[in-house]
Amino acid sequence: MGSEGTLGVITEVTLRIYPLPEAVSAAICSFPTIADAVTTVIQTIQIGVPIARVELIDGNSVRAVNQYAKLSLREEPMLLMEFHGSPAGVKEQAEVVQEIAREHSGADFEWADTPEERTRLWTARHNAYFAAVQSRPGCRCITTDTCVPISRLADALLDTVAEADESGIPYFLVGHVGDGNFHVGYLIDPDDDDERARAEALNHRVVQRAIALQGTCTGEHGVGLHKMGFLIDEAGAGAVAMMRTIKQALDPDNIMNPGKVFAL
Amino acid sequence: MGSEGTLGVITEVTLRIYPLPEAVSAAICSFPTIADAVTTVIQTIQIGVPIARVELIDGNSVRAVNQYAKLSLREEPMLLMEFHGSPAGVKEQAEVVQEIAREHSGADFEWADTPEERTRLWTARHNAYFAAVQSRPGCRCITTDTCVPISRLADALLDTVAEADESGIPYFLVGHVGDGNFHVGYLIDPDDDDERARAEALNHRVVQRAIALQGTCTGEHGVGLHKMGFLIDEAGAGAVAMMRTIKQALDPDNIMNPGKVFAL
Repeated sequence: MGSEGTLGVITEVTLRIYPLPEAVSAAICSFPTIADAVTTVIQTIQIGVPIARVELIDGNSVRAVNQYAKLSLREEPMLLMEFHGSPAGVKEQAEVVQEIAREHSGADFEWADTPEERTRLWTARHNAYFAAVQSRPGCRCITTDTCVPISRLADALLDTVAEADESGIPYFLVGHVGDGNFHVGYLIDPDDDDERARAEALNHRVVQRAIALQGTCTGEHGVGLHKMGFLIDEAGAGAVAMMRTIKQALDPDNIMNPGKVFAL
Repeated sequence: MGSEGTLGVITEVTLRIYPLPEAVSAAICSFPTIADAVTTVIQTIQIGVPIARVELIDGNSVRAVNQYAKLSLREEPMLLMEFHGSPAGVKEQAEVVQEIAREHSGADFEWADTPEERTRLWTARHNAYFAAVQSRPGCRCITTDTCVPISRLADALLDTVAEADESGIPYFLVGHVGDGNFHVGYLIDPDDDDERARAEALNHRVVQRAIALQGTCTGEHGVGLHKMGFLIDEAGAGAVAMMRTIKQALDPDNIMNPGKVFAL
């Protein structure tokens, strides 16, 4: 886990199968600010509601998705949630979260109980990347992902948003916020070297902030090539040296995804 | 995880704190046979009830605990269960499990909702080992633990019980059966070499059966010294060679829990 192909290749996989939940219900909820949305998520997780999915998309993403998919969602930060369990359990979870959301100026939940309705609601999330990229014709998207402990999520997200707003570079933000994981995409003009450099600098600050908050430099995209330096910042030179020792022991000829995660 | 101290020592630990569930409820339920109890557990897990704890103690253990702690529990295989969640969610989970139990000749649940009552119910489980050992004065207990996929738990347990009954050696069985994990203890006369040899042979068959059912030779006791051979049976010589390579890379002087898990 986490070796990114540098220690082996998978030749056989056994899956553990879980039953489908008896009841599944999805809801969206808009908030006037990202702070309100994130605080709702943090309190939901900390109170122990076993929410199955909770995704955040910011107002910029909603605006782009409305144009891209001809939707008319409120152009504000939005949480997309899914609840799994028994019918009464799902209802109870949702009531608790709606109550927390209301305390943070959240709108009334919009519900989806059938698979078709759920797909419609989740469209906004699934299209967010493509919609954002199309919102600035000819742009290139520079993205990052980081993950922080849920208790530090507001600090991580709000400073990221403030810096992105200040930069004037178009951007969007989406996140698997229930896990403390989020992505920022900066939509840059590929011919504008200055803009690219500023986006990369913003990107670095997002990651450095996550590490300072005891988070990780990558939630799911991986270290690969681009975050090799950050891995050292995060884990320390000693830990990376230990990873290198394991790599050399298991792959002495360096044939498995060579050159990734750390330099040999 | 699983290196049993052979790769390092823990010098610092960060704990992730989870909130206490809003509602906790515990119940015990007796069954005429172990097969009925185990089938109830398997169906509960497979239907997706998020039961927080489910422990099995066999009739031998209940008899010993009754003597040891002056209880009057029905001397039959018994499940001890705990449900966590919201009040309605806990109620709903318990109703589903009671329904499954009834289909398998389970008695009516006996309930405990306060911490004091829960402690009283769990006493039987917590005392099982000491009660069993005292039930044969002067005995020594030879125990094992194994873990199998939940779908194979009935096969693993029932054959184990049949062999133990046939041997005539006093034994008891307890298990964290919700995880597919169980323990058998054979109560032998330490001066009887024949009995010890037969108990060890039974023990080996329990482990070999678990491995054949795609389980593991140890659920939580560890490989240590006694199960080094079983680890090779389970993981294969190639995998153990890889473990050895990692051990030698990280601990070239062999100073960390030397001699355990596998031979260098």
